[in-house]
Amino acid sequence: MTGASVISAAATAFGPQPDTEVHELAFRAAWEAIRAIDLDPARIGMAFAGHAYQGPCFGQKALMRMGLSGLPIINVENACASGATAVTLATQAIRAGACDIALALGAEKLTTPGGGFLPIVADDLDSSMGRVMPAAFAMQAQLHMARYGTTREQMAMVAVKNRANALANPRCHLKKAVTLDDVLSSPTIADPLTRLSCCPVSDGAAAVILARDSIARQFTAHPIRIAASVLVSGARTPHGIVDDKSEMSIRAARLAYEAAGIAPADVDLCEMHDPFTIAEIIHYEDLGFCAPGEGGRFIAEGRSAIGGDVAVSPSGGLLAKGHPLGATGVAQIAEIFWQLRGEAGRCQVPGARVGLAHTVGGGVSKLEAGACGVHLLVA
Amino acid sequence: MTGASVISAAATAFGPQPDTEVHELAFRAAWEAIRAIDLDPARIGMAFAGHAYQGPCFGQKALMRMGLSGLPIINVENACASGATAVTLATQAIRAGACDIALALGAEKLTTPGGGFLPIVADDLDSSMGRVMPAAFAMQAQLHMARYGTTREQMAMVAVKNRANALANPRCHLKKAVTLDDVLSSPTIADPLTRLSCCPVSDGAAAVILARDSIARQFTAHPIRIAASVLVSGARTPHGIVDDKSEMSIRAARLAYEAAGIAPADVDLCEMHDPFTIAEIIHYEDLGFCAPGEGGRFIAEGRSAIGGDVAVSPSGGLLAKGHPLGATGVAQIAEIFWQLRGEAGRCQVPGARVGLAHTVGGGVSKLEAGACGVHLLVA
Repeated sequence: MTGASVISAAATAFGPQPDTEVHELAFRAAWEAIRAIDLDPARIGMAFAGHAYQGPCFGQKALMRMGLSGLPIINVENACASGATAVTLATQAIRAGACDIALALGAEKLTTPGGGFLPIVADDLDSSMGRVMPAAFAMQAQLHMARYGTTREQMAMVAVKNRANALANPRCHLKKAVTLDDVLSSPTIADPLTRLSCCPVSDGAAAVILARDSIARQFTAHPIRIAASVLVSGARTPHGIVDDKSEMSIRAARLAYEAAGIAPADVDLCEMHDPFTIAEIIHYEDLGFCAPGEGGRFIAEGRSAIGGDVAVSPSGGLLAKGHPLGATGVAQIAEIFWQLRGEAGRCQVPGARVGLAHTVGGGVSKLEAGACGVHLLVA
Repeated sequence: MTGASVISAAATAFGPQPDTEVHELAFRAAWEAIRAIDLDPARIGMAFAGHAYQGPCFGQKALMRMGLSGLPIINVENACASGATAVTLATQAIRAGACDIALALGAEKLTTPGGGFLPIVADDLDSSMGRVMPAAFAMQAQLHMARYGTTREQMAMVAVKNRANALANPRCHLKKAVTLDDVLSSPTIADPLTRLSCCPVSDGAAAVILARDSIARQFTAHPIRIAASVLVSGARTPHGIVDDKSEMSIRAARLAYEAAGIAPADVDLCEMHDPFTIAEIIHYEDLGFCAPGEGGRFIAEGRSAIGGDVAVSPSGGLLAKGHPLGATGVAQIAEIFWQLRGEAGRCQVPGARVGLAHTVGGGVSKLEAGACGVHLLVA
């Protein structure tokens, strides 16, 4: 089957940008990706724009600033997985022969709706009763602690690692190292999660350009092949009110590993969905980097650090780089693209050849299904 | 290339349904389409859910009611063309080999946001200054009248025709015939458009199931082939503040006719984007049913009636059937599916073999790009 490769990527800095409108952020990312390879924008056959809360015809508004509004532009939403969904559809468009070059764009401006909790949907009973995201993740943390002996210190280590990684990334929102004590002693949001255990409220945009494998080298000497592009849906907690794993993540990762013929042990770096510290610990297990229940020890033993078994979120991840919803999944692909080309600067994971991007989004309960995207990229 | 055919379709009645939530409407349409062909829901490989204002993970919430939340579900938005976008992506997924069977779903509940004008995006200068949809279409009408001598009576004839067509359609919102005088003497909304020249505010949902051509007959004796599925983007009025044609519609129709090897004269029926009477007159011209400027005479001579050159909106169209944004484009495909199978009941266009569905949506000005979808279906 025809395959797709990433030939260019760009992202704005993440962080509060209250004076710049979201379409301008998205335009900047797309235009930078296009200019980086001197691409004639008219060669882009389809564009997919991921966002969660940015209003009608978001992609058109961003792209018409470069005169690029004639092509099919599809605005996609899948909560936190909106950006991954855009990348999956761009990959599929190329595989379908619908176009030779596709643009995946993602952006979000979270400071505008108030900069606090995400908007609560009117009919979302759980959220309206207080089970917003931090509460849902806190319940997962409590369960993981009770079942497996995971500690507050182990969770805090995730924040310490990702904040340290972020110091090397010029696009990061939070540019200050934190200590274990800082994380543990910061104000409680939802026990055991403290403020420094939660990702910040960020604005930002990212873009990647994909091409049919057979023409990718016309645009760059080092295209990065998309070895698997998997999107699944499901409930966050299909087994009940709270769960100590992400069933969607387990399923999407399994499908991706099978499609690519890659094993978890082959993965050199992973940009992971870590909106809260506990999420990263759980997802080590979900993605097969360690066995169920061993996530706490995995971080404590340094196995997810740069130089460990797998470098997890060398960019700083959602916890430090920031999490502008629609942008996140696309920015993960951009980070991996740079890593696998050896262009990640001070974030670089030495010798990285296989990268995994993971995002999972959606409602907090059994009654609120969401989506999960897993991409495997190979140098 | 692998092609796609429609194998089943369903739609709820359109009209105010304030006590039914939108996910329930969408579920009902999808479930009816699945049951109509005794399809095991697990065989659906991907689902695309079109809507404009219904919140995060809309498709997941609708489909998990039938236990169908594991597959990739992609929520798409393209203003009034959201439903057409879902159908285009479902077609593409099958052509890509990503799945053998895909579901395109569309729904909208417009009575909930208040039942009046559409929500105005904060940064939409035109709308905030009063150039909402009725005003934008009224300006188009004034230009068409001035340039081509189109009359208020000719515009009113569109409403009379579509309201009459609707009487035969059990799913229609407006179930009352109107006379020319009724339309002309109803209150002015934006001169020359009167209240009866505008589509109503409707709730509703629709679903179509697509299969790879080579397996379509396993599910139904009469699959309907999708001969062209075109989506384009662009500005509503690329030539200035107001325009007497829809550039996006002209371009999408040309691409669709070329892809299908079909000429406008071959089209037996057309479900057309007619949110206001003037839109239908302009789109006769855009879609090649008559020459530019002749749209007024085209309706006056009865050429768009059932039994004329091309039956336009035999379902009643947006003007009478209703226009729940995300549902509209999917419902058009459903109506054509029934017509080309001879199952349209009292709406039936005798001997119909080729149908065209047309939707165009987006902002009102040069600065607000939107999207247009054109599908050609063949019995």
